Amino acid sequence: MRIAVAKETREGEARVAMVPELVGKLTKLGYDVAVEPGAGLHALVSDEEFTESGATIDADAVASADVVLSVQPLAPDAVRRLRRGAATISFLPVNQELSLVADLRDVGATSFAMELVPRISRAQSMDALSSQALVSGYRCAIVAAGMLRRFFPLNMTAAGTVQPADVVVLGAGVAGLQAIATAKRLGAVVRAYDVRAAAAEEIRSMGAKSIDLDLDTLEGAGGYAREMTEERAARQMELLTPYVAEADALITTAAVPGRQAPLLVTSAMVEQMKPGSVVVDLAAESGGNVEGAVAGEVVRIGNAQVWGGKNVPSQMPGPASKLYAQNLVNILTLMTTTGEDGVGSFTPDFEDEIVTGSCVTHDGEVRHEAAREALQGGPK
Amino acid sequence: MRIAVAKETREGEARVAMVPELVGKLTKLGYDVAVEPGAGLHALVSDEEFTESGATIDADAVASADVVLSVQPLAPDAVRRLRRGAATISFLPVNQELSLVADLRDVGATSFAMELVPRISRAQSMDALSSQALVSGYRCAIVAAGMLRRFFPLNMTAAGTVQPADVVVLGAGVAGLQAIATAKRLGAVVRAYDVRAAAAEEIRSMGAKSIDLDLDTLEGAGGYAREMTEERAARQMELLTPYVAEADALITTAAVPGRQAPLLVTSAMVEQMKPGSVVVDLAAESGGNVEGAVAGEVVRIGNAQVWGGKNVPSQMPGPASKLYAQNLVNILTLMTTTGEDGVGSFTPDFEDEIVTGSCVTHDGEVRHEAAREALQGGPK
Repeated sequence: MRIAVAKETREGEARVAMVPELVGKLTKLGYDVAVEPGAGLHALVSDEEFTESGATIDADAVASADVVLSVQPLAPDAVRRLRRGAATISFLPVNQELSLVADLRDVGATSFAMELVPRISRAQSMDALSSQALVSGYRCAIVAAGMLRRFFPLNMTAAGTVQPADVVVLGAGVAGLQAIATAKRLGAVVRAYDVRAAAAEEIRSMGAKSIDLDLDTLEGAGGYAREMTEERAARQMELLTPYVAEADALITTAAVPGRQAPLLVTSAMVEQMKPGSVVVDLAAESGGNVEGAVAGEVVRIGNAQVWGGKNVPSQMPGPASKLYAQNLVNILTLMTTTGEDGVGSFTPDFEDEIVTGSCVTHDGEVRHEAAREALQGGPK
Repeated sequence: MRIAVAKETREGEARVAMVPELVGKLTKLGYDVAVEPGAGLHALVSDEEFTESGATIDADAVASADVVLSVQPLAPDAVRRLRRGAATISFLPVNQELSLVADLRDVGATSFAMELVPRISRAQSMDALSSQALVSGYRCAIVAAGMLRRFFPLNMTAAGTVQPADVVVLGAGVAGLQAIATAKRLGAVVRAYDVRAAAAEEIRSMGAKSIDLDLDTLEGAGGYAREMTEERAARQMELLTPYVAEADALITTAAVPGRQAPLLVTSAMVEQMKPGSVVVDLAAESGGNVEGAVAGEVVRIGNAQVWGGKNVPSQMPGPASKLYAQNLVNILTLMTTTGEDGVGSFTPDFEDEIVTGSCVTHDGEVRHEAAREALQGGPK
């Protein structure tokens, strides 16, 4: 059985789905590993390193593979080259990639979307959204520290004291908590808010103050926040306004996978910030938590410089690739039977909720309900 | 008596010599404080804030003042506008500013250079080199963390462990120690080296490992490192090579005030660094600790991105200005007699070693020996 590591083709994608130090794990499962030439280049991994780790470099890797690994969804022409019955594992945001889902169905591919892996404890080690959010969260705190033209930490010197920066983090999922941890490490005074009640404890455990807005909390399924009514959202903004106004740096991380990010901060709120303030919006790509933020750009709103994140994990492609590759190794381990002869077979168990939960297409059918209905023109 | 705060005119200078929160201290000494319009703009201080603090905004502030405060040396035309007998306090690197020193002499100004304040414990609170180095040291660690496309801290996650970054700091003066402290805060593994024996203890007290090269140490006067022989310098490079090669981020901070910075790292050494490595050379403006570093630019040497610092304190103009202004308040306090009527007189005591040590020109004469000799064409 052969695993292919695809070279990413989408613009700005620097990650790679496998790293040399983990190739041995796939070999041990009984797979041959073939890597497209230059696949690791942007993540600073050379073809030589892959070769030394036991992989082969092969321009036809995708066409000859039983399982194809990638970060972003495969390009349509790569899908056309798949062997009938081959499997693909990648990020695959079905709502935005319906035509690709149809292609995968039509070539009979078994495709798995890493963002659909259920958030159950057994699947934690396969949770690529979390592993990549960890990278994003660290990165956005470092970006904020770099943009802010003052110290994060308190400084007591012979020439007097410089007060620490006041950092506000909105959204305390994996990315938010990592942003909090990083800003705290640097010595900033950090306050954080999340609509989920459970987040307050996690925020405090990071040493930050939890902002209590005295709103009823909203906790949705799968550990993600639910959407809220317009009225509640307006009240939330109103209550957040003084915190935003006081912040030297505002970091927003409230993204709901596959959905429009909630608008948490209006430009009027940003306009109340002090001269020299900075805003980092990690959700800029999915609509933005901050009104006016533009993905991949720094824009000025009032006194603040507003940085909009764009494929932030890809800005640290080395560690992001390594963590993602480990997620893939873990899910592949679940889906593999290794024979006594040491040869691996790709045998996803469709009774397993991780397998069924993450499967998008299989055997000529779209298994993902919403995608299937959308493709049939049925109710969404 | 009137103190003027000059608007900085040199390109790229964003600091200002006084901040609103310290104007009251000058008023209390018995001075009127006049600020040139827009002086605080780049440091995000408005004219209104100065006015509210008790200062006046005056386009003719310099021409009417008894003492003129600035960060950079005054512009030649500002010197010509000084009242006879007026005093100036600023940074004033005499070797590079001989013609300005002659101008100051010719207009009969009493000029003080903040970099000449003796490094004695009584003058610690006036030590502007240290206060600005503190800013530079923090800033260069943040720059390194922003350039490095991987984590500084160790990360243990459900998808495996990401190793912390290996940071090497060369030069452990105020800037180096602050860079060490900041990199340590962020969780990097930090190793540091300084030619001065006493530095090893300070390095360890920051939680970093001290690199011991097994060279005899060189300790010069005034707490600065002495220059070393060519042979010793070559041996030092040879011994530092493996540390540089292993580093993910190299930060060099070995600057000797008013002199050419020592070359510590050749481009051949940088070429041995890994793909994705970053180098931050804080001494790039004074010749560079790293061969090939260019002040104000990022250049590529081998696999490394090399950032050359250019007026780094000015990149954080708010806190840098505040600390510098406090240094000025402290030296002004030493040089002021406040009468019972609350009126201050500028009365520098030329018996005081801080006054004599920092004085460049006075009463039509150049007091700084090397500058005087250079201007007379005598031995340097």
